Amino acid sequence: MPLLGLLPRRAWAALLSQLLRPPCASCTGAVRCQSQVAEAVLTSQLKAHQEKPNFIIKIPKGTRDLSPQHMVVREKILDLVISCFKRHGAKGMDTPAFELKETLTEKYGEDSGLMYDLKDQGGELLSLRYDLTVPFARYLAMNKVKKMKRYHVGKVWRRESPSIVQGRYREFCQCDFDIAGQFDPMIPDAECLKIMCEILSGLQLGDFLIKVNDRRIVDGMFAACGVPESKFRAICSSIDKLDKMAWKDVRHEMVAKKGLAPEVADRIGDYVQCHGGVSLVEQMFQDPRLSQNKQALEGLEDLKLLFEYLNLFGIAEKISFDLSLARGLDYYTGVIYEAVLLQTPTQAGEEPLNVGSVAAGGRYDGLVGMFDPKGHKVPCVGLSIGVERIFYIVEQRMKTKGEKVRTTETQVFVATPQKNFLQERLKLITELWDAGIKAEMLYKNNPKLLTQLHYCESTGIPLVVIIGEQELKEGIIKIRSVASREEVAIKRENLVAEIQKRLSES
Amino acid sequence: MPLLGLLPRRAWAALLSQLLRPPCASCTGAVRCQSQVAEAVLTSQLKAHQEKPNFIIKIPKGTRDLSPQHMVVREKILDLVISCFKRHGAKGMDTPAFELKETLTEKYGEDSGLMYDLKDQGGELLSLRYDLTVPFARYLAMNKVKKMKRYHVGKVWRRESPSIVQGRYREFCQCDFDIAGQFDPMIPDAECLKIMCEILSGLQLGDFLIKVNDRRIVDGMFAACGVPESKFRAICSSIDKLDKMAWKDVRHEMVAKKGLAPEVADRIGDYVQCHGGVSLVEQMFQDPRLSQNKQALEGLEDLKLLFEYLNLFGIAEKISFDLSLARGLDYYTGVIYEAVLLQTPTQAGEEPLNVGSVAAGGRYDGLVGMFDPKGHKVPCVGLSIGVERIFYIVEQRMKTKGEKVRTTETQVFVATPQKNFLQERLKLITELWDAGIKAEMLYKNNPKLLTQLHYCESTGIPLVVIIGEQELKEGIIKIRSVASREEVAIKRENLVAEIQKRLSES
Repeated sequence: MPLLGLLPRRAWAALLSQLLRPPCASCTGAVRCQSQVAEAVLTSQLKAHQEKPNFIIKIPKGTRDLSPQHMVVREKILDLVISCFKRHGAKGMDTPAFELKETLTEKYGEDSGLMYDLKDQGGELLSLRYDLTVPFARYLAMNKVKKMKRYHVGKVWRRESPSIVQGRYREFCQCDFDIAGQFDPMIPDAECLKIMCEILSGLQLGDFLIKVNDRRIVDGMFAACGVPESKFRAICSSIDKLDKMAWKDVRHEMVAKKGLAPEVADRIGDYVQCHGGVSLVEQMFQDPRLSQNKQALEGLEDLKLLFEYLNLFGIAEKISFDLSLARGLDYYTGVIYEAVLLQTPTQAGEEPLNVGSVAAGGRYDGLVGMFDPKGHKVPCVGLSIGVERIFYIVEQRMKTKGEKVRTTETQVFVATPQKNFLQERLKLITELWDAGIKAEMLYKNNPKLLTQLHYCESTGIPLVVIIGEQELKEGIIKIRSVASREEVAIKRENLVAEIQKRLSES
Repeated sequence: MPLLGLLPRRAWAALLSQLLRPPCASCTGAVRCQSQVAEAVLTSQLKAHQEKPNFIIKIPKGTRDLSPQHMVVREKILDLVISCFKRHGAKGMDTPAFELKETLTEKYGEDSGLMYDLKDQGGELLSLRYDLTVPFARYLAMNKVKKMKRYHVGKVWRRESPSIVQGRYREFCQCDFDIAGQFDPMIPDAECLKIMCEILSGLQLGDFLIKVNDRRIVDGMFAACGVPESKFRAICSSIDKLDKMAWKDVRHEMVAKKGLAPEVADRIGDYVQCHGGVSLVEQMFQDPRLSQNKQALEGLEDLKLLFEYLNLFGIAEKISFDLSLARGLDYYTGVIYEAVLLQTPTQAGEEPLNVGSVAAGGRYDGLVGMFDPKGHKVPCVGLSIGVERIFYIVEQRMKTKGEKVRTTETQVFVATPQKNFLQERLKLITELWDAGIKAEMLYKNNPKLLTQLHYCESTGIPLVVIIGEQELKEGIIKIRSVASREEVAIKRENLVAEIQKRLSES
């Protein structure tokens, strides 16, 4: 019990005395009431925390606060992403941060252990959402919605070992776009890829490539190579790691940890090296093993049609059919895809370097049916933009370039060189606010003029309005441009109009 | 153990067999390892759920999904609120959804029991945030920030008995604006009230009133009435209920449940009936009991200054000094306020009816110091807009009026009367998307024209672009206005320009 090892002697005593209480009425005798034990442990832990003389303020492991600087970058990126989703006719939606635990179980494969569970506080068993896809499927089934194009931007939580260096956190934002409904094949799937291209181009992150495969081709390949069906999802999880691990290590995991025969692993190894355009699809139709597999053939047929639509969308050259793409999540049933950024090659002909996945998705035709009492299916296809990774890249780039962002949008500052002029400043700023102008002043009765001008320079406010006794008598007011330090006097009654004019010009 | 009572026989057996395993190596012998017990209980519960033949899909008690209709209303209201916060120079910020449990303990008074705790999964003890104020104070202390004007829009969670009729949920959105820092008295406080007025006027919710009081006046009043100091916060919580409960019931709670002497309660009763403008502040300076109390006098001095600034902001007539206002949260130290909507009186002279609080806040000068190892204080004042209540009011109003909202922003629909015209539609819609036009089409190879036009009417898309074989040959295309049903033919190459012209005109 490593937890208790940390407790000070006093807390230990408290815990023991609680545990030595007679079992409560509803206990079975043999088994001590779980809630009693839990309560005792909790009380002791809290005491231990509170007793620390020099406490350290912390936030939960793997999480972070988003500072105003972060927020500005985020807002820009999210605006671009959301406006693309809206351009394609998506509606907004939101679901609760937590779901019933049973809603989320058996949806995510190997990663299920990374779910955050809520404490049983005498009600339902709840877990924080792990992605936005399962809640969407639950929503469709619960409301008997058969058709919907929606986007969802929200936080999800995963108890992964946080590696903060790479910009991965236990709490992170997802931006999902999904199309639910029974439609003609590959049209919505192609639109998802088009959306990924529009967003990645729009964000100007540099060159990118979208790897495409199909779960039926993956499974067909497994069958053709001799993987036992019971191992399909586990081997799929291993293959999914190929973008982070070398083939040798993935092979080792499959053979040593997952008990795959070495020759089967080697057969898979031949396939996962293949990537290319529509010609590779054609080639695979001829593959002696794959062409024997009905599932794989269906997947290949669909990919062929998909490439036709991608051509019409003008994005085929961004897409690579890649047999190493497997996607870790259990729920995919058809086309799968993942976008990676390519570093610009330093030399012509050099292999572009993979700098990680920034968007991904696929078709999941069975998930909604898992929530429907009668198993009615609603086919779905969608994508998720890895905005955290993108925030990180953009922030790093700004840091390298030494770019600064303004964290406020204030347009005008109200200043005075005069003492005891608070009343006039308050009246004046009210006028600006009421006209919709973004304005600030210092919360001081008698601030120094220099302090006020410094504030404008350091926070990037472009205009200053200066009032003093003399100006007040003459019915004028001064407007100062912070950048040029030029000042002009204008009539007091024209103030709002003059400012609006200047703001619209800049 | 009510939990286990629900388990079917098979799950019971599984649980017992798990509990009868020998204790794990780290168990002390006397005490069974807590994690073993917890795991066994959980596994059994989950099994029980999954075994149900006719499961019902549910979302957690007291939560709800936000449909596209909800989201559209929310987006409009949040845009208005956030643009007001930005107009006053606030920066954006975000904190994790959960905090260390110890960060949140002893901050909320009587309501602390309503916190959602996370399960101990072998790490820290965590709880979902209960408001945005405590995380803000923690942020300031942790980053040694002495001055900051920030807004924060985010979800918070409280395990209250949900009364869904009134639009109260266990997960809800808060919109907070706060000013941290040492400034001259009452200037930031007055700005907070100005912001509340701007937002409530901007939202056009009808007439409103902001009740103002000061924690020092509340405490001074308690002292003057003879409330023992140890009961201050508990009595404060009772007084806070005066907007929902009659005085008689609040009095009963204080006397019967909280052990207050009846004559003390009656003395309080005299004060809490007082409300008025700045003249009531003057009057209270003369109050024989209050004027003896140093704290109360400080509060009255500040309120007097506050009213002076509110006059300059032009909002004094919206503000009422109200001695019944107490605010439930522990952390307030100075001015407190709460905005209520007033129903329009049907008869002149009739008392306006209180329809509930829609914004509130106050000064909390001690909270940041609670997180600082050396107790360094950062004075803060802020406000929270009760957006959930506002969403509810606006939605109800729209329902009454029969108003409909569009849940998508699609501007153009690409249609065809022709069979086998998918390729042309895909090429055309690409052109629109790439020009930034919001466009949709049906995901069908051969949709009927009527179906396509119906779709536009039902979703409110204003323009349809129609292509057919004949048009294609002639190098033209038709644009149809959905509202007027008028069609015009234009040159194919002018399509984007023509559409942009029409969209900018409408």
